[in-house]
Amino acid sequence: MMTRDDEYDRIIIGIDPGTNVMGYGILGVERKRPSMIAMGVIKLSKFDDHYMRLHRIFERVLGLVEQYLPDEMAIESPFYGKNVQSMLKLGRAQGVAMAAALHRDVPIAEYAPLKIKMAITGNGGASKEQVAEMLRRILNIPQEQMPDLLDATDALAAALCHFYESSRPQPQGGCRSWKEFIAAHPDRLK
Amino acid sequence: MMTRDDEYDRIIIGIDPGTNVMGYGILGVERKRPSMIAMGVIKLSKFDDHYMRLHRIFERVLGLVEQYLPDEMAIESPFYGKNVQSMLKLGRAQGVAMAAALHRDVPIAEYAPLKIKMAITGNGGASKEQVAEMLRRILNIPQEQMPDLLDATDALAAALCHFYESSRPQPQGGCRSWKEFIAAHPDRLK
Repeated sequence: MMTRDDEYDRIIIGIDPGTNVMGYGILGVERKRPSMIAMGVIKLSKFDDHYMRLHRIFERVLGLVEQYLPDEMAIESPFYGKNVQSMLKLGRAQGVAMAAALHRDVPIAEYAPLKIKMAITGNGGASKEQVAEMLRRILNIPQEQMPDLLDATDALAAALCHFYESSRPQPQGGCRSWKEFIAAHPDRLK
Repeated sequence: MMTRDDEYDRIIIGIDPGTNVMGYGILGVERKRPSMIAMGVIKLSKFDDHYMRLHRIFERVLGLVEQYLPDEMAIESPFYGKNVQSMLKLGRAQGVAMAAALHRDVPIAEYAPLKIKMAITGNGGASKEQVAEMLRRILNIPQEQMPDLLDATDALAAALCHFYESSRPQPQGGCRSWKEFIAAHPDRLK
């Protein structure tokens, strides 16, 4: 296991939850400049058992939290969905990922997909490919380090969105729960 | 912290998840005879913050798992619900409770409310009060130990339902995921 050195002023873990593939991205901030530390996916479709998938999500996210020691977690979450069955499943996947963060006292912020696309590309209707391409340019990611699965870039985009939102002097909408968390826990502010 | 003695052949923790109140019940089985070890509720409405609630659920359920060392967890879960927003929230509450069990390698079984009512009272349309009264009689619980909040008896009912279902030579429906888990992990069978 790697331990965190003090290269970064702040580390944000982004999560794009799902029960087939879960994406993650680790964003480092050094003197207000964000950069990618790592990104990848946790593949879950190889497990038939629903609980095995949830277990894997929890252990892998806990592993990432212990490895990179993020200061915050940003999660992409829709505020509504197609059907109740899929929302229950998504809620469980989010829940186990959140449990891993909360267990290590990492505060959580969540953003709707539209909000994230808007923050990264300026267009709430941008495709995943457009988000990935903008991320690559903003963070100067070498082409060969770009992932095959866009769940990874979506997760990193959530982290970058959170960086933008929380760096603004007066955030506008979209991070209400984050603001509330900070208001309730001034001691967690640096 | 109490450590488990070998009084019981098997211990089942039942969970009735919710984001306002979460019920739990601990069922012990000794020579095929079930009895109540403990039951209670985790009150969450005092926390305004959604993540504080999820954190509390995770830590309390993990605490119960570490205290009573259950062999299995039984969860009451609807298979459909009113709206997608409430199902996402319920999924998160279930997810963090499940994460606590999975983190300690406790396998999970889930049962629909109708199935639990049917198993305990013989009537899928029974009220929570009727379920509580049948539980009291079946498990010989002294009246003064009966809880005020029926989330506790609902949780204990889930545990007892799981005991009935898993004790049958040929379980009929309702515990498909449990059977699948056993089939996939014969080493976890005693």
